[in-house]
Amino acid sequence: MNDIVEKIVAGDVRTVARLIRDIDDGMPEVREVLKDLYPHTGNAYVIGITGAPGVGKSTLVDQMVAHLRKRDKTVGVLAVDPTSPFSGGAILGDRVRMQRHSMDPGVFIRSLATRGHFGGLTQSTRSAIDVLDAMGKDYILVETVGVGQDEVDVVRSAHTTVIVVIPGMGDDIQAIKAGILEIGDIFLINKADREGCDKTMSDLRMMIEMDQKKYDRGAWKPPILKIQAVFDKGVAEFIDEIDKHARYLADTAGGLDFRASKTKVRQELGEMIKARLIEEVIDRLTESGDFDRAVESIIKGKIDPYTACENLVLPTLS
Amino acid sequence: MNDIVEKIVAGDVRTVARLIRDIDDGMPEVREVLKDLYPHTGNAYVIGITGAPGVGKSTLVDQMVAHLRKRDKTVGVLAVDPTSPFSGGAILGDRVRMQRHSMDPGVFIRSLATRGHFGGLTQSTRSAIDVLDAMGKDYILVETVGVGQDEVDVVRSAHTTVIVVIPGMGDDIQAIKAGILEIGDIFLINKADREGCDKTMSDLRMMIEMDQKKYDRGAWKPPILKIQAVFDKGVAEFIDEIDKHARYLADTAGGLDFRASKTKVRQELGEMIKARLIEEVIDRLTESGDFDRAVESIIKGKIDPYTACENLVLPTLS
Repeated sequence: MNDIVEKIVAGDVRTVARLIRDIDDGMPEVREVLKDLYPHTGNAYVIGITGAPGVGKSTLVDQMVAHLRKRDKTVGVLAVDPTSPFSGGAILGDRVRMQRHSMDPGVFIRSLATRGHFGGLTQSTRSAIDVLDAMGKDYILVETVGVGQDEVDVVRSAHTTVIVVIPGMGDDIQAIKAGILEIGDIFLINKADREGCDKTMSDLRMMIEMDQKKYDRGAWKPPILKIQAVFDKGVAEFIDEIDKHARYLADTAGGLDFRASKTKVRQELGEMIKARLIEEVIDRLTESGDFDRAVESIIKGKIDPYTACENLVLPTLS
Repeated sequence: MNDIVEKIVAGDVRTVARLIRDIDDGMPEVREVLKDLYPHTGNAYVIGITGAPGVGKSTLVDQMVAHLRKRDKTVGVLAVDPTSPFSGGAILGDRVRMQRHSMDPGVFIRSLATRGHFGGLTQSTRSAIDVLDAMGKDYILVETVGVGQDEVDVVRSAHTTVIVVIPGMGDDIQAIKAGILEIGDIFLINKADREGCDKTMSDLRMMIEMDQKKYDRGAWKPPILKIQAVFDKGVAEFIDEIDKHARYLADTAGGLDFRASKTKVRQELGEMIKARLIEEVIDRLTESGDFDRAVESIIKGKIDPYTACENLVLPTLS
């Protein structure tokens, strides 16, 4: 056990890779390792990058890595792709991503595509962040595909959450903006040379300024930056904004240590309890055959699923 | 109790609206009503519509309603928007959507924006489908924003799942296609007059044909249709494809009744157990103060969250 922890803290890439794969696969053994790793965490700065498919998140992350490396920072990247049922998407992603930074020992890149087991993606991602943190990476970039609840939960773990949009996203943008405004610390309009950029900028600005009173009381006001990630335009300025946000966090109550922030700890512990509970109970119900018997009864019309659920759940609780 | 059930089965709009709001708010009282409603369900045909923001799902759903109404079918629409923290997005959505069909008693439209309580979106949506089903709607259209795990779980409940894309969606499309291929019964390329439509068509076709062996054995081969929802181009043909898929389902094992499909029942019961478990346990841990005490200990560095989680979860299980 301590051997694994030592190797990870020393930055051993193969041990880290194996542990993250085990986390992604939902292996129960990882729990003990994570407990022992925990005292070595709390030093990395975590940046969440989210936005709809096609906005250019991967390109942006690639440029961010290059900039952070130029500033002599080590970087871990987690690409979270819950849409891939075979982790096919994730594997593809890894290959594409690895190319440019693959020979750089200061960069560690992995994809997570957890599904199939009940533990859930948020928990796996949180644990993988702990591993890269214990490994000594200065920055951890967490890139998520999509804007579902999972993704929102994932980026809630970040110090700085970055929302990437592109000009002219159509009918749904109102709904998205309402949903992500609350979690965005920095907004990026990528592919800013496209038509409709100024409209997107003014839409976003209007939404953000609806909370003007909050900013007047000292809350962080999310900046909106126009960038063109593919040409590296505006990325350096974006990294400067992240620094600014980090200083803001350090200056205000809570600071940079996740463990000092009550909201984050509540969130993290809640997710962890959720994942653990489901794992334990589903395992029991599956092994005893009770789950399958209930499925049969529902199919035969002997019981409704609501009652069946109650009959299964209540006896497992003390 | 029976009064509520009677009113819903009779199609009373106000009772249905109130029950769905209670489901969305996670009220425990709804459980008993859902049990009693269950025998009245299993008659509606459920269509899931998903795709990235901006592909025009709302416009498409609006046109589908018009077509189904022309065919004398009654329609329920559930717009699932998990990204909205204040249900602001959903409310906005409702207003926009209601306009055209608001005076038609054959159409019932509601948004779900469940968050904040642990029960989860998939479960709320499943229950809301049951309500519209018991209410007697012939078709239920479930529209989801985004492509996260939540959305995938939601559309898994549908008879026919429709994936909407637009031409030229950029870097992420490979990953998305890998993720949604498995769940898509019909693929639509909306805004098909845009540049890159043929490329998107051939990309999708290539991905689908990778499973050719499956189709040779009789599995449903997802058609890909070019449409322009805003001009109602291709929508009638699309509805015909849905009919074709429904006939396919009726002809093959399992048929159209959800309750006869083992995979669907397993999925549904699993989700229900998950939601119920979390609700019960989180409530207990919150009320007893154990949860808050654990949060304090983690913040003070007295315990790591992994051990704290174990200490909280294991005693709640019998």
